[in-house]
Amino acid sequence: MTRFGAVEAGGTKFVCGVGTGPDDLVTTTIPTTIPEETLERVAAFFNGQSVGAIGIGSFGPVDLNPSSAKYGYITSTPKDGWRDTDLVGAVKRALGVPVALDTDVNAAALGEARWGAAKGTRNCIYMTVGTGVGGGAIVEGSLAHGTAHPEMGHMRLPHDFEADPFPGCCPFHRDCLEGLASGFAIQQRWGVAGDALPLDHAAWRLESRYLALAVANLACVLSPEVVILGGGVMMKDGLLGRITSEVSELLNGYIALPSIVMPALGARSGVLGALALAARLTCLNG
Amino acid sequence: MTRFGAVEAGGTKFVCGVGTGPDDLVTTTIPTTIPEETLERVAAFFNGQSVGAIGIGSFGPVDLNPSSAKYGYITSTPKDGWRDTDLVGAVKRALGVPVALDTDVNAAALGEARWGAAKGTRNCIYMTVGTGVGGGAIVEGSLAHGTAHPEMGHMRLPHDFEADPFPGCCPFHRDCLEGLASGFAIQQRWGVAGDALPLDHAAWRLESRYLALAVANLACVLSPEVVILGGGVMMKDGLLGRITSEVSELLNGYIALPSIVMPALGARSGVLGALALAARLTCLNG
Repeated sequence: MTRFGAVEAGGTKFVCGVGTGPDDLVTTTIPTTIPEETLERVAAFFNGQSVGAIGIGSFGPVDLNPSSAKYGYITSTPKDGWRDTDLVGAVKRALGVPVALDTDVNAAALGEARWGAAKGTRNCIYMTVGTGVGGGAIVEGSLAHGTAHPEMGHMRLPHDFEADPFPGCCPFHRDCLEGLASGFAIQQRWGVAGDALPLDHAAWRLESRYLALAVANLACVLSPEVVILGGGVMMKDGLLGRITSEVSELLNGYIALPSIVMPALGARSGVLGALALAARLTCLNG
Repeated sequence: MTRFGAVEAGGTKFVCGVGTGPDDLVTTTIPTTIPEETLERVAAFFNGQSVGAIGIGSFGPVDLNPSSAKYGYITSTPKDGWRDTDLVGAVKRALGVPVALDTDVNAAALGEARWGAAKGTRNCIYMTVGTGVGGGAIVEGSLAHGTAHPEMGHMRLPHDFEADPFPGCCPFHRDCLEGLASGFAIQQRWGVAGDALPLDHAAWRLESRYLALAVANLACVLSPEVVILGGGVMMKDGLLGRITSEVSELLNGYIALPSIVMPALGARSGVLGALALAARLTCLNG
């Protein structure tokens, strides 16, 4: 069985892996420093390993347009030193194998669709709720890109200023989903991190409301079979159940309630999704 | 060149057509009465015409799941007499040709993507704003269905009750997009139909706001190249321009502004989309 390489490229760490799937995957973690150093260490990890292709799920924005001159680049990121980094080119040059790239959230969606909570579905959404909020989608079996890539975290939702006077903290849109419901928003609104707040705190009533509105809207637009909610904020015990019952109320029987679940692959959705990207690329294994 | 048949099945009329495309299409209009009579007249129109397949774009909800026992049926519609009508079966039995079915809005999206305002794009959305609000999407070249089909008209949007005390008129969700921005909502809010209200009336400030929020959310979720806005409400001169500039403000340079346009096929998006469904089905012509 052909082995593949996987890179989950994040703003604080790069998780690299080699293997064939969830039961056969060796990973290593490399801290994200400057691009040259980080990518050299990525190359060193894969060097000498025989892999058919490497898949990368990356933080962004990334240029995914195959006909663009900057295809495979991390583009206008605010992350120090990483603007205009040729991620695909660097890996390809260092290792001489085919390289597939997608967003970190699309990779996670693909990982969960191949081996995890959305196995066997052709329509699913992966939303991560951490410092920021992002989302990836598989629609009729294809990863959705559009002209750039989805930015689900920036959709606008009802915001009841009486119940929640916090103005929102998105620098671009103020009270979009990310501006109201990200981990950063919780921290800004209450002055402490979410994990310091008990489930009966008002913070979680707002949080489940906003995330339920987001999931309901995604259900209206894409009618997914499964919506996977990952990221640090979702680790709060009891939050998932609250969101599910609020989504059910919001859809009110008119629209099919998707199955709303946590990632079955845990913290490995992204790196396994990157592995699936590599496998799909070569068509040897996927 | 193989000719195809097309049916745009609506709640007030069925538009039937035979031809090969926009420059070669003969249509007839049949009023929607009871299913038996209406479908008999549809069959009579096609009888003796030599068509390779028939495509239907229908009002709904329709069952589009090929493995369902009720595939091809109009299901739980409130329209008198039409509940549980076997649309595909009736046409297939009467005419003995392959029949393709999709929603009216997906058909319109496909028509515009094949011959109209979204020609050549792989990611576009068609939204109709009439008595109700509906939407169809093409994602990475495929019509999006999901587990049922999109119900974009029912997404939740910010509703500023001070600027707009109208509670919304959707029987399922009250102030969802359809409940706030459909032609019926305009009529209910102001006591007159939209076309009686001049463009400087407050009605259109609200209307452009809600539709811009909807388009911005769709841009966040799907990153479409083109968003086509059709339906009676969109006939208001000047409305499209207002929506476009509000979407641009809402996205604020962070997310690619899609091209926001009216249907290039005018009132024929639906019937031509149904024709494209037929052509795709046989793969003889599409």
